Amino acid sequence: MQAALVLTVILSSLLGAFAQKPHHCKSPPYLQGKLAVDFPEGKTMVYEQFYYDALEERIRVVAAGKEGEHDVFMDRLLLFREKVYYDIIYHNKTCTKNSLDAAFVPIAIPFDAKHRAQVVLGSLSAPAEGLLVNNWVGSDAEIKANYSLTFTEFGCIPVVTLYHIDGVGHFLSSFFDMIIGIGDPSALIPPAFCFSNNTVERRDGKATNFFTALL
Amino acid sequence: MQAALVLTVILSSLLGAFAQKPHHCKSPPYLQGKLAVDFPEGKTMVYEQFYYDALEERIRVVAAGKEGEHDVFMDRLLLFREKVYYDIIYHNKTCTKNSLDAAFVPIAIPFDAKHRAQVVLGSLSAPAEGLLVNNWVGSDAEIKANYSLTFTEFGCIPVVTLYHIDGVGHFLSSFFDMIIGIGDPSALIPPAFCFSNNTVERRDGKATNFFTALL
Repeated sequence: MQAALVLTVILSSLLGAFAQKPHHCKSPPYLQGKLAVDFPEGKTMVYEQFYYDALEERIRVVAAGKEGEHDVFMDRLLLFREKVYYDIIYHNKTCTKNSLDAAFVPIAIPFDAKHRAQVVLGSLSAPAEGLLVNNWVGSDAEIKANYSLTFTEFGCIPVVTLYHIDGVGHFLSSFFDMIIGIGDPSALIPPAFCFSNNTVERRDGKATNFFTALL
Repeated sequence: MQAALVLTVILSSLLGAFAQKPHHCKSPPYLQGKLAVDFPEGKTMVYEQFYYDALEERIRVVAAGKEGEHDVFMDRLLLFREKVYYDIIYHNKTCTKNSLDAAFVPIAIPFDAKHRAQVVLGSLSAPAEGLLVNNWVGSDAEIKANYSLTFTEFGCIPVVTLYHIDGVGHFLSSFFDMIIGIGDPSALIPPAFCFSNNTVERRDGKATNFFTALL
């Protein structure tokens, strides 16, 4: 009887220890938020508002920023299941429809990423003063990139991602104001004028995972 | 009677609105934590463990990192009230005692800093998944620097500070694992061998506020 009790205690401690290890997590299926992207050499800085739906495999990104001296603006809706993406221009109600070859890759820590550190941003000494995050590193052979991903321990929300792409440079994305859920579902549906005759169709589209789709 | 009630409601809403505005805060008097400092042009990267006591005006910094190809290491105890700082070398039990001209400047948002943004790191959609922070910008005439300071809304804990010093470059400090309090008070007392005959005294010391003292 006592031996069984000891065995139970040991087993549950072991299982507890395994459970406590940071795990390769996947973000919630519905997310919206903002991010600031710093492109190679600090020449381009872009602010983006995005909507992410992993169930129906749709992403909407509205980006505005500066590339050197030029203003840049982009409003893109990626529909991975339909294998198309739309570039939407509201002010003259036109659309460009492009083919999209890539498979939808959900926001997640890749299975082969290595856990580097768990740290607290701010402090856990008092409630609401700190945030527990994990940093993961790895490389993506497909896009020839090394990455560093920092996600929250609870909820698996992205905080900072850094991609270093061979021969291109660094892409630093800082995520903020993230909401679990979608506040405006219509943001993930092409506007009516995208189905009119004004819509130009192209077949040169290419995009990969969520992060590189936002670049 | 009704007019008085309306006035009370209006006044309390107004006062509420003022109270809700992010305020120029001061960090807790006892803090310890870690920071990663990225020096100009990314040539030097230093990790620091620090202990901060604003009541007795003492700071201890242990820094290790790389400057180009060279390893750098520093263990410094700054005693602002006594106007001295010690550079401590444990492995051969020697000390350098230096004069310290600067006034102690507590960790705080300077009174003339401008509030730029309040954002959530992670998400407030669920408990423990997000952190509310404020970003402040301004300039410091004394050290000829522009700065961007990101502190937690609750607790006034530093998260990221960026100093751009004229003619020198950027200093990016990322704070983490912050604890309110001091776990090891002896870290703020010079070790016994600093009072022996081996201690060299110098008079060329110079340091300014908390952040530049850590640089």
